Amino acid sequence: MEELLEELLEECRPYTKEGKLADYIPELTKGNLDDLGIYVMRSDGKHYQAGDYKKQFTIQSIIKPILLLQALIDNGIDYVRAHVGVEATGKPFDAINMTDQTLLSENINPMVNMGAIAMCSLIKGDTYEERIQRVLELTRKLAGNEDIQINQAVYLSEKRTGNKNRALGYLLKSYGMIQDDDVEGLVDCYFRACSIQVTSKDLAHIGYVLASRGKLPQTEERVFPSKYATYVNAILMTCGMYDGSGEFAVKVGLPAKSGVGGGIMAVAPTRMGIGIFSPGLDEKGNSVAGIKVLEKLSKRMYLSIF
Amino acid sequence: MEELLEELLEECRPYTKEGKLADYIPELTKGNLDDLGIYVMRSDGKHYQAGDYKKQFTIQSIIKPILLLQALIDNGIDYVRAHVGVEATGKPFDAINMTDQTLLSENINPMVNMGAIAMCSLIKGDTYEERIQRVLELTRKLAGNEDIQINQAVYLSEKRTGNKNRALGYLLKSYGMIQDDDVEGLVDCYFRACSIQVTSKDLAHIGYVLASRGKLPQTEERVFPSKYATYVNAILMTCGMYDGSGEFAVKVGLPAKSGVGGGIMAVAPTRMGIGIFSPGLDEKGNSVAGIKVLEKLSKRMYLSIF
Amino acid sequence: MEELLEELLEECRPYTKEGKLADYIPELTKGNLDDLGIYVMRSDGKHYQAGDYKKQFTIQSIIKPILLLQALIDNGIDYVRAHVGVEATGKPFDAINMTDQTLLSENINPMVNMGAIAMCSLIKGDTYEERIQRVLELTRKLAGNEDIQINQAVYLSEKRTGNKNRALGYLLKSYGMIQDDDVEGLVDCYFRACSIQVTSKDLAHIGYVLASRGKLPQTEERVFPSKYATYVNAILMTCGMYDGSGEFAVKVGLPAKSGVGGGIMAVAPTRMGIGIFSPGLDEKGNSVAGIKVLEKLSKRMYLSIF
Amino acid sequence: MEELLEELLEECRPYTKEGKLADYIPELTKGNLDDLGIYVMRSDGKHYQAGDYKKQFTIQSIIKPILLLQALIDNGIDYVRAHVGVEATGKPFDAINMTDQTLLSENINPMVNMGAIAMCSLIKGDTYEERIQRVLELTRKLAGNEDIQINQAVYLSEKRTGNKNRALGYLLKSYGMIQDDDVEGLVDCYFRACSIQVTSKDLAHIGYVLASRGKLPQTEERVFPSKYATYVNAILMTCGMYDGSGEFAVKVGLPAKSGVGGGIMAVAPTRMGIGIFSPGLDEKGNSVAGIKVLEKLSKRMYLSIF
Repeated sequence: MEELLEELLEECRPYTKEGKLADYIPELTKGNLDDLGIYVMRSDGKHYQAGDYKKQFTIQSIIKPILLLQALIDNGIDYVRAHVGVEATGKPFDAINMTDQTLLSENINPMVNMGAIAMCSLIKGDTYEERIQRVLELTRKLAGNEDIQINQAVYLSEKRTGNKNRALGYLLKSYGMIQDDDVEGLVDCYFRACSIQVTSKDLAHIGYVLASRGKLPQTEERVFPSKYATYVNAILMTCGMYDGSGEFAVKVGLPAKSGVGGGIMAVAPTRMGIGIFSPGLDEKGNSVAGIKVLEKLSKRMYLSIF
Repeated sequence: MEELLEELLEECRPYTKEGKLADYIPELTKGNLDDLGIYVMRSDGKHYQAGDYKKQFTIQSIIKPILLLQALIDNGIDYVRAHVGVEATGKPFDAINMTDQTLLSENINPMVNMGAIAMCSLIKGDTYEERIQRVLELTRKLAGNEDIQINQAVYLSEKRTGNKNRALGYLLKSYGMIQDDDVEGLVDCYFRACSIQVTSKDLAHIGYVLASRGKLPQTEERVFPSKYATYVNAILMTCGMYDGSGEFAVKVGLPAKSGVGGGIMAVAPTRMGIGIFSPGLDEKGNSVAGIKVLEKLSKRMYLSIF
Repeated sequence: MEELLEELLEECRPYTKEGKLADYIPELTKGNLDDLGIYVMRSDGKHYQAGDYKKQFTIQSIIKPILLLQALIDNGIDYVRAHVGVEATGKPFDAINMTDQTLLSENINPMVNMGAIAMCSLIKGDTYEERIQRVLELTRKLAGNEDIQINQAVYLSEKRTGNKNRALGYLLKSYGMIQDDDVEGLVDCYFRACSIQVTSKDLAHIGYVLASRGKLPQTEERVFPSKYATYVNAILMTCGMYDGSGEFAVKVGLPAKSGVGGGIMAVAPTRMGIGIFSPGLDEKGNSVAGIKVLEKLSKRMYLSIF
Repeated sequence: MEELLEELLEECRPYTKEGKLADYIPELTKGNLDDLGIYVMRSDGKHYQAGDYKKQFTIQSIIKPILLLQALIDNGIDYVRAHVGVEATGKPFDAINMTDQTLLSENINPMVNMGAIAMCSLIKGDTYEERIQRVLELTRKLAGNEDIQINQAVYLSEKRTGNKNRALGYLLKSYGMIQDDDVEGLVDCYFRACSIQVTSKDLAHIGYVLASRGKLPQTEERVFPSKYATYVNAILMTCGMYDGSGEFAVKVGLPAKSGVGGGIMAVAPTRMGIGIFSPGLDEKGNSVAGIKVLEKLSKRMYLSIF
C-alpha cells in the first residue's frame, strides 16, 4: 500500500504544476507548488503515507464540515436544517445565491461561504473567542492532534482582505438569517477558523472519524452520533468540492472537502480517511494534483461508493 | 422483509394525500392519488413487493438515466462528457440554465430536460423512429420485460403541450449543442421516451442492473461496462431527484431518479434495486409518499451509502 | 445644414471601420462596412441628406416600434400594455428574461425580441400573410414609400438560422403569453417583418411621423393618435438602443431605434426625424458610426431633450 | 394654475391610501399617509403650490442625483463614467447586479444604491465629515434653503438597520470599485446624505436648477455646467423611478427621482421644476399619489418631452 501511494504521487507530480496558488488571500501566495503529500488511515488501524504529508497548510474550506459538525452537536439536525439548506447551488463557493431580491436559507448550504458563516452563528459560546476555541478543540479532537493552532499571518491576511465575506455576513444579517449583532465579530470568527493549520495526516484522521461515523480510532470513543456523520458525508458528496462536486462524484465517488490552502479530506465510509495536500488549484479552487491522486487511488482500490 | 414493506406502506399511506398529481401534462391528471406500491430486488436473487406494484405509469424523467446509458453505450464516456456536464444546476428540471447570453454544455446535465434532449441527439439511429426503438429495447432489457410499450395518450398529450421542451430544443440548436436539423423530431423522440409505461417492478429491475454495475439478474449477462454504472449512479446521487437531490442524499443516501409520473427508481450499489410508485408529487416533482417510504426503508435496513 | 451633414459624415467616417457586420444572420455578412448615409426631415418641411442615404438595408429591429404601433392601432394602449411591459430589461435584445421559472409579461418589452414576437401575435389578420401585409403597408405609409419590399434572401437566411427566436416563441407559448397555436407561423411573420428593406430616407420619414406625433408630412394626415406616438417615443428612449439605451440617452438624448442591419431611426419630438445607415456594429448591436454621427449632430444642433 | 394644482390634489387624494409607508427604516413608519403636497417653480419666475408643501420629510434616494452632481463637479464626466455605468439595471434599487461572480461598474448606475455609494466615494473631502458637509451645502444651494439639515433620528435608524447597504459597500470594496478603506465610514456618509430633510418646495427648487441646466433662479448664477444637467436628466429618465422608470416615461414623460421618504422631484427641461410629497409608496418604492398627480399634471399641461 505504501508503495502504491508512492507510485501515485509519482504519476501525479506533473499535475502539481498545472494548478495555481490561491491569490485572493495574499499570505497564501507564499506556498510551494511542488508540495505533494498523502496520508491514509484505514479502519483496520493501519496508516500509510507518502510525500509531504507532514507539511502544514491552512485548513480553509475544509473547516466547513467541522463547523457544521459543531453546529449539529450544539443544536441537533432539525435546528441546523431550519437555518440552512442542503442543495448544491450550482455556483462557486463565494456566490451570492439570491433569487432576485430574496435570500432564502434553502438556497445556501454549509459548504458555501454564506452557509459556513451561518454555521459560526449557530455554534454556542458566550463570546466569539469561546466559539473559535470550541471549533479549535473539536478540530484537535477529530485530528487526534493537540498541537493544532491558528496561523496568525494567514488569519490577519484574510481579515484584511476578506471584504466579500464581510458582504456575505451583512447580507445574512440583513435578511434575518443570523442573530449576531456583531457581524464583524462573526466574520472574524470565520476567518480564524479558516486559518487553522493542519497536515495531510490531520485531514486523514478527521476523514477517518467521518468514515467510522463518529468514532475516534483506537479508543473507539464516540465524538458525535452516527446520524451526524451520515448527514455531513451526504452534503460533502453533493457540495464538498465546490461547483466541481458532480465531476468529483463521477471520477472519485467519495464524500470529500477541499480547501484553497491545497488540502483535500476524503471519506471512504467504513473503510478509510484520506488526507491530501498539494497547493496548486484549478479555477474552481480544488487541488489539481490532489484530485488526480484521489481519482487514481479510487480506481485502483475500488473506493467509489457508486 | 415482505412484512417490512407492508408495514412501511401502511405508515406512509397518509403521505399519498399530501402530494398533487402532475398537471402540466393533461393526461397525467387522470392518475389515482391512492396508488402506492413498492418492489425490491436483492442481489441474492430474492424479490419482495407490496401494494400497487403492478400498476402501470409513465416513466417520465426516470428515462433520463436510460437515455444517458444509451448515449454512453453508443459513444463512450468522453464523447458524452464533452457534450453535457455533470454538475447539479441548483435549479428545477426544466430550467434554462444560462449565464446571461451564453448556454454552456457544462451548465446542463443529463438529469435535467435540456441535457436529456441532448442525450436523445447523441443516440445512434438513422431515423428518430429507430432511435426511440433502441431506447425502448434497452428499457425492456434493463427491466427484463418485453411487454413494455409507449403510452400513446400520454405521448400525444406531451406532444401537444410540451412547448417549454420545444423551446429548450431550439435553444440547444441555436447554441450549436445539438447537430439535428429536425428539432421537432428530436423533441418528439424525447416525448415518446418519457411516455414509456412501466411498473414498480420494472423500475426495481432497472435499479438492480445499476446496482450490480451492468449485469442482468440470473443470466449475469453484462449489458454495459461497470464504469457506465458508476458514472450514472454518481450523477443520480447529485442530480437525480431534481433540486431535492441534496435533501434526498441526506435522508435516504442512495442514487435515485424520480419522474412526474409518480415513480422512483433507487439503487443500493451491490445490494438491491428498488422501484416505487405513488403519483402524489411535492412541488419539486418528487413523489411525496415515495420518498417517505425510501427514507424509512433506508433507516431500517441501513442502506445509506454515507 | 447640408454642409453640416457632409462634415459630420467626414468626421465620423473613421468609425465605420471600428464596427463589425452582424454575423448571426449569414445574409447580413454581405454588407459593405464603408457605407455611411444620413437623411434628416425637418418639421418645417425641409429635407437634408448626405452620403449613402439611398442605400438599401434590412430594417431588422427598427421594425419593433412599427409592430408596436400596429398592435396599438389594432388594440389600444391598455390591451397592449396588459400583454407586455415597458421597463428596460438591463439585458441584451435576445435575452431570456426569466426570474427563475416564471416568465412575466412585465419583464419583456416591445423593443426586445420576445416582446416584438408578442406584438406580432397582437396584430390583427386572419392569416399570418395578412398580418405581415398590414405591417408592410403601415411601414410604407410611415415611410411615404410605396416601393418598400421584403428582402427574400435575408428573410430566408433568418428563417433558416433563427432558432433562438423560435425558442423565444415557444417560451411565450409555454407561458400562455401568446394565443397563436402556430408558433412557427408567428415567428415566420417576425422574420419577414425584420427583413423589410429600407433606406436612411425611409427611416427619417418614419421618425418624422413619430416626431410630429402621428401626422404625415405635407398632407398632415393623422396615421395614429398622438398618445401612441408619446407611448412609442418614451419606450424608444428607455429601451430603443438595446442595453446601450442609457449611454445613448446621455450622449444623444433622443428617442431612437437601431437595427443590426446598420440602421438607426431617431426622433427629435416636434423638430425632426433622422435616418442613418452604417452597417458596422458595436457588441451591443448598434451602428458605431451611426451613434457617433447622432452624438455630434445632437451637440451641434442642441437636439437633446434633456 | 394654483387652482389646477388644488384640483389635482383633490382628484388624487384617494390614492394616498393605496400606498404604504416605507417600513425597512423603522423611523420612516412614523409618517402620515394623509400628507399630500406639491410645489411648482416655473422658468418665468412664478411659483405655485398646494397642500402640504411645507411638510418636511427625508430626501432618501432623491439625494442620488445630487451625489452624482457633486461627483461630476469634483471629477468631471469622464472620470465618473469610468467608475459607474448609465444603463437601467432592470432590477430593484438595492439589487446586487452581479453577472455571476463578477461585479462590473457598467452594471451599476448612480440611481441604484451601489452606484450612489460609489458616488460618495468619488466626492472630495479629507474626511467623511467634510464630504457630507459638501453634499449638504450643495443641497442647500440647489434648494435655495440654508436651513436644510440632517434628520438625526432617521439617520440613526438607517445606520442601525442598513445592513444591506453595508453589504453593498463591502462588495464594492471587494471588487476594487471604491478606494476607501473605511467602508463603514463611507456607508455612514451615504446614510447621512439620505437623511437630509427637505420639503416639496426644496425639491421643486432643485428640479428647477436641473430644468434650467445649472442656473439658480433669480440670480441666474451657474452652479454647474449645462452638460452635467443633461447628463443627470438623461439618467433620471432611464433610471430615476427605480424599476418603474419605463412606466413613468410612458405616463409622465419627464426626468424625475423618487425617494422612499415619499418625495418626487421632477424636471421639465427649460420649463419647470416640480416637488411632490406623499409618503404612501407602491411596491417599487415610488409615491403612489405622487405619480398620479404628475401623470395628470403632465397630461393637462402637455409636459411630456416625448
